[in-house]
Amino acid sequence: MKAEIISVGDELTVGMIVDTNSAYLSSKLAGIGIPVTRHTVVGDDLDEVADAVGAASHRADLVLVNGGIGPTIDDVTRQAVAAAAGTTMRLDAEWLEAIRGMFTRRGYVMPESNAIQAMIPSAATRITNPCGTAAGFFIKINSAEVSVFPGVPGELRAMFEQEYLPRLLEAAPTGRVIVTRSLKCFGMPESLINEKIRHLMGAGKNPLVGLLAKDAVISVKITADADGEAAALAMIDEIKRTVRAILGDETATPPGPIYGEDDDEMQHAIARLLTGRRLKIATAESCTGGLIAKRLTDVSGSSDYFIGGVVSYSNEAKSIFMGVPENLFAEVGAVSPEVARAMAEGIRARLRTDLGLSITGIAGPTGGTPKKPVGLVYVALAHSMGTELQELRLTGTRDEIRDRSAKWAMNMIRICRH
Amino acid sequence: MKAEIISVGDELTVGMIVDTNSAYLSSKLAGIGIPVTRHTVVGDDLDEVADAVGAASHRADLVLVNGGIGPTIDDVTRQAVAAAAGTTMRLDAEWLEAIRGMFTRRGYVMPESNAIQAMIPSAATRITNPCGTAAGFFIKINSAEVSVFPGVPGELRAMFEQEYLPRLLEAAPTGRVIVTRSLKCFGMPESLINEKIRHLMGAGKNPLVGLLAKDAVISVKITADADGEAAALAMIDEIKRTVRAILGDETATPPGPIYGEDDDEMQHAIARLLTGRRLKIATAESCTGGLIAKRLTDVSGSSDYFIGGVVSYSNEAKSIFMGVPENLFAEVGAVSPEVARAMAEGIRARLRTDLGLSITGIAGPTGGTPKKPVGLVYVALAHSMGTELQELRLTGTRDEIRDRSAKWAMNMIRICRH
Repeated sequence: MKAEIISVGDELTVGMIVDTNSAYLSSKLAGIGIPVTRHTVVGDDLDEVADAVGAASHRADLVLVNGGIGPTIDDVTRQAVAAAAGTTMRLDAEWLEAIRGMFTRRGYVMPESNAIQAMIPSAATRITNPCGTAAGFFIKINSAEVSVFPGVPGELRAMFEQEYLPRLLEAAPTGRVIVTRSLKCFGMPESLINEKIRHLMGAGKNPLVGLLAKDAVISVKITADADGEAAALAMIDEIKRTVRAILGDETATPPGPIYGEDDDEMQHAIARLLTGRRLKIATAESCTGGLIAKRLTDVSGSSDYFIGGVVSYSNEAKSIFMGVPENLFAEVGAVSPEVARAMAEGIRARLRTDLGLSITGIAGPTGGTPKKPVGLVYVALAHSMGTELQELRLTGTRDEIRDRSAKWAMNMIRICRH
Repeated sequence: MKAEIISVGDELTVGMIVDTNSAYLSSKLAGIGIPVTRHTVVGDDLDEVADAVGAASHRADLVLVNGGIGPTIDDVTRQAVAAAAGTTMRLDAEWLEAIRGMFTRRGYVMPESNAIQAMIPSAATRITNPCGTAAGFFIKINSAEVSVFPGVPGELRAMFEQEYLPRLLEAAPTGRVIVTRSLKCFGMPESLINEKIRHLMGAGKNPLVGLLAKDAVISVKITADADGEAAALAMIDEIKRTVRAILGDETATPPGPIYGEDDDEMQHAIARLLTGRRLKIATAESCTGGLIAKRLTDVSGSSDYFIGGVVSYSNEAKSIFMGVPENLFAEVGAVSPEVARAMAEGIRARLRTDLGLSITGIAGPTGGTPKKPVGLVYVALAHSMGTELQELRLTGTRDEIRDRSAKWAMNMIRICRH
């Protein structure tokens, strides 16, 4: 069994948007042993879409089409697939009621233009959209089963995972699987990680081990090809143990860079650590402007350990909320180890938490001086045994400096022993 | 003249990597008036690549192939294109010397496996690679000129910009340009915007007007095809004026959904408004956990109007920082209009700002009750004339609820008249 993916949208063919849906669907299908042999991207053009669907339906067993099923006049995928199937359209009355209900619950009357989202080809079977108004559907065309999904990534993923995949697995259980798992690292340069584990890497190995760097996080990717998921996971686990022994996590001495696995972000590692140790934390942010608090609270249930935070973008706010002495600003400046310490200790005392994390720095692009250049950031972590300080000198855009400094600050929580 | 793009690589079809090259090439070609009608992604398979190249060569005038010209046995693009052209391969002796030179300068002897990177189809003309060992080439196949580039994005871009584009413009000066601009909207449903401006839309029009919804922001995309950029921009400006008159921005009565253009985010609109009106703001966030402060401070120079904020994830923090009366929590709950009002008024008073924005709600997935379900959010904006309140009932994931509620809250600042 093999599959092809077709993404529809002018915003893709003009290069305004990168097609991430094809990669998502491909990795999911690979995960259950169904190879994807081709992606095709076409614009919102009825003939082009019909032509692409028709051609794919001769080559593949499964054709997954996404995009072009919104309510606007540009959205031609429904009609194009019907044309490729040589059939007409019908109204799915049940789904029309569902759409009306969605609008009603939000306090609107459904615009009549949305009714088209309940139209599907006559011979097609609807795939319910768990989080949107556009109905998906599947239909037999030539030797293939052609399925149509929304192009909005969130809706596509929900529909694929909740509706499409369970039905597919029930209809055609596959044997071989390709499974990828990752170990996520922060705080050690990619080249050093590469040096330490390169003997595990190399083309043609199974499991295949590779490094992927993104936003200062280095992922050790481990891909196994095996008969069944259990076998693949066992092969991956063996490599994981070896990599963990070499690189180490926060329990190693000195602490290692591995903070988590797969989709883990630093905030998930912190959630586990603080929950396990029953510690509460508060934050005081200047240059990151709330980014650390935002990430800590990305985790559902974070109110168990995150008490609150302050974004003190002015000196006044630093004094009002953390009691930072006003003379410090004149003496050493807001971006200084002294102010970082006063912020961390101040927020810890104010909110009576175990840990107080602070950050102050110059994110740029303006505001730098020769003595205090853009990218200079001070981070402080106050705890029961005292206050730890870290000076960072980062490069990059404003967004990058804010992202990296938030990660270094959060990493201090991770490797803290107190 | 129209173009197609073919990207080659197993890492693409298995979904390990997203195809960014196609979007890059498409936007570059659109910029000189050459529309791209299709992207095709195939794996490292000789027959698949040859088939994709052959089919594209019948449909398009330019076919840009990238990937699969490395030195390994997997790299089959050279041979596949030769097969599609019905020709054999030849050694480009000059390029072989160039490759040897690159290795020598780095202090290595060229591995013999790299010699294959100097092989090109017999009838092809080499395209020099300014920063790598893989030679590109172009060759006539059927009605198309087929060009082959490396898949490594840096090498692809250097070769495209330094070698390919100048030659293309010299051979066929287009003069014609395709320019796209956007009006960004928030706060009005896509279907309603569609209804209001659908008479401007429709395939084949120039400028072409379309809608793109992403993360609750609706972009009105206007694409003009003209002789020269000035002419295209003039055509776009006329449509922009019409759309602005129909939909309106914050100066309209009632306020309209247009908050900005092109890459504008809501925080940029707020930056312009607050700077222009010399207003200062402070924030008090519960469910968004710092996301609003983070976005406001995404803008360099935001310290001119953003004084500070509080992330009050516990009732205690709400009382300590904003003086929210503790009995309110027992009486009406933390997620209530009363607490939202007390937070907004409290932070405005504490930091002595013109505006105080607050948000409290249930982002989920846990924490909801039948009376206060996940997605229930209260937003309050305190100003000199009083406090405005808004109740939201949102659906989606935790991330989506936080994103949407932050945007609705920030939109209150945008449309505030006080």
